[in-house]
Amino acid sequence: MHILYAPNDAGASEWITALTAAVPEATVSVWDPEGPSVGADVAVVWGPPKNLFTREPGLKVVFTRGAGVDSVLALPDQSASVRIIRLEDAGMGVQMAEYVVHELVHASRAFGKLAVAQAEREWLNLPATERRDWPVGVLGLGQLGTRVAQVVASLGYPVAGWSRSPREVDGVECFSGQASLNAFLARTRVLVNVLPLTPETENILCRDTLSRLWPDAYLINVARGHHLVDQDLLDLLDAGYLAGASLDAFRVEPLPIDHPFWTHPKIRITPHNAAMTLRDESIVQIADKLAALARGETVGGTVDRQRGY
Amino acid sequence: MHILYAPNDAGASEWITALTAAVPEATVSVWDPEGPSVGADVAVVWGPPKNLFTREPGLKVVFTRGAGVDSVLALPDQSASVRIIRLEDAGMGVQMAEYVVHELVHASRAFGKLAVAQAEREWLNLPATERRDWPVGVLGLGQLGTRVAQVVASLGYPVAGWSRSPREVDGVECFSGQASLNAFLARTRVLVNVLPLTPETENILCRDTLSRLWPDAYLINVARGHHLVDQDLLDLLDAGYLAGASLDAFRVEPLPIDHPFWTHPKIRITPHNAAMTLRDESIVQIADKLAALARGETVGGTVDRQRGY
Ligand SMILES: NC(=O)c1ccc[n+]([C@@H]2O[C@H](COP(=O)([O-])OP(=O)(O)OC[C@H]3O[C@@H](n4cnc5c(N)ncnc54)[C@H](OP(=O)(O)O)[C@@H]3O)[C@@H](O)[C@H]2O)c1
Ligand SMILES: NC(=O)c1ccc[n+]([C@@H]2O[C@H](COP(=O)([O-])OP(=O)(O)OC[C@H]3O[C@@H](n4cnc5c(N)ncnc54)[C@H](OP(=O)(O)O)[C@@H]3O)[C@@H](O)[C@H]2O)c1
Repeated sequence: MHILYAPNDAGASEWITALTAAVPEATVSVWDPEGPSVGADVAVVWGPPKNLFTREPGLKVVFTRGAGVDSVLALPDQSASVRIIRLEDAGMGVQMAEYVVHELVHASRAFGKLAVAQAEREWLNLPATERRDWPVGVLGLGQLGTRVAQVVASLGYPVAGWSRSPREVDGVECFSGQASLNAFLARTRVLVNVLPLTPETENILCRDTLSRLWPDAYLINVARGHHLVDQDLLDLLDAGYLAGASLDAFRVEPLPIDHPFWTHPKIRITPHNAAMTLRDESIVQIADKLAALARGETVGGTVDRQRGY
Repeated sequence: MHILYAPNDAGASEWITALTAAVPEATVSVWDPEGPSVGADVAVVWGPPKNLFTREPGLKVVFTRGAGVDSVLALPDQSASVRIIRLEDAGMGVQMAEYVVHELVHASRAFGKLAVAQAEREWLNLPATERRDWPVGVLGLGQLGTRVAQVVASLGYPVAGWSRSPREVDGVECFSGQASLNAFLARTRVLVNVLPLTPETENILCRDTLSRLWPDAYLINVARGHHLVDQDLLDLLDAGYLAGASLDAFRVEPLPIDHPFWTHPKIRITPHNAAMTLRDESIVQIADKLAALARGETVGGTVDRQRGY
């Protein structure tokens, strides 16, 4: 087995060492942007090189070093028989949940106002937050969205979730399918997006959907930048429909220096770090899945090319 | 029955109306700072007037409109037979838990640095947060501390708690008694204080205890200002022993305008609103406890004057 590790970045050598230790029967090499084919049959990729499949036509299995697979599915020259496998949770769910809770509570408990008050040495008298005033809606009830919804529910917020197929999650009102989207939006004040990016979900955060939320709604986008129509968000914030947004993912990353999001007073920016890949957890999962494949078992996280995730 | 409602403040008339509805057999009146005794046998108090017991010698039961009773126990002229009953949770536990999680995650996920980076339009590359680097210790495993510890544990942080008598809380390493305090402090990086204020716990957050925490420790004080020796905190922050503090309660409230806490770059201030009294939940609980008393039952939240809480 030859495993090609495709991000040739600062942490690559640690990944190579750990992958070699976890899969001792494999040769592990790092992607060389200028090099020839290494005859890899397995790849572990993130922000994959455009010519991955062109140069490595022998690839049979591609693991993503994250939960999203949109960037791999977009690569040219891949055969439909290549198996794409994503990370399932691998320590990301709890990070995503705490990130979302931080941004939710920042809004619901007015921590922005409290910071301004401290700067002015003002002892602010705020009314108590009533949870019924802050219904949260989570787009996507997969590995990550389910964990997010559960933690938010444990804090007493009314929570709903939306998925493609029907789901059941304790303490979460579950909606599914396109036909229920408007009803889900109409009962939501804080909208959290944890969907995968697919042709069906691209641009889902737009004027039409965002304007169906409660007044003074708040958007938390921890999925992909291409889910959001940037100008629609800016327009709705400036028109006072939305109270604010926390954005972790962007159409172009790093977010360009002249993008209006950086300086908008109602937008909070984080650098795509809501849920970071944890090397050790990820490598254990990849090694386990390689072993399951070798035994001919079905493997969780295998992408359905039809669905796009 | 005559119920005296003692904070003569902005919300008093709503409390009087709701108390009257919940306890229809009672006369309910509001404290008049200049008035004579109304012959009350029950009081509902917060920040109680100094002369409460002097003027109302017939008081048999005093409810606090919060979880703390330190201010009532400090009043002169009270008989040891007066029953003091505090709120038990009544919607405060979940607020306290979300406040603590917000401040914990603000520190562990470097949201302060991220805000500075946004202001500078900088796309920051931060390492992933490893939960093992952020052991949390909760002083006080009562109504509120237990909920705090449980929510923090559900987010995967190593959590310990400290109480007077031995406690068992799922997922929480439990320490009890003075003899175990140093061991509890030595395994803690983020120290959360949810103790009641008693002669034994006054000044518990001092140079000796705070300097036993992990390096780069963080203090979250959501209990009482008199738990903390202000100058010790300032010294330890300035000497680099502590990385920061979130303070919700102060020796003098509102925090005086010239207090150094307001402008200290490592201190975050909130105006004693970590867990706010919710009127409806509180009145239901008070009415239920009055009914239980009338039936001669024991009532939770009854203060043990010996313990001081
Ligand atoms: N910002 C970050 O740091 C970060 C980190 C990791 C991941 N992410 C993003 O998070 C995404 C979700 O990850 P995950 O592991 O939770 O994915 P997942 O387990 O595949 O779950 C995806 C969820 O979205 C639902 N969904 C997909 N297409 C839909 C559609 N057209 N209509 C309605 N619901 C639809 C799925 O419905 P079914 O339940 O019916 O399948 C499922 O509930 C990733 O794709 C990635 O983009 C971001
Ligand atoms: N900032 C805010 O907005 C806010 C709001 C509400 C309350 N509070 C504060 O929070 C405090 C706690 O409320 P609660 O309802 O959780 O109180 P509680 O149910 O009485 O719990 C108190 C806890 O502290 C422990 N304790 C007391 N004295 C101790 C000592 N000397 N050594 C070790 N442990 C000791 C108790 O131990 P045992 O379990 O052995 O009894 C118990 O676990 C209140 O007193 C109040 O000051 C602040």
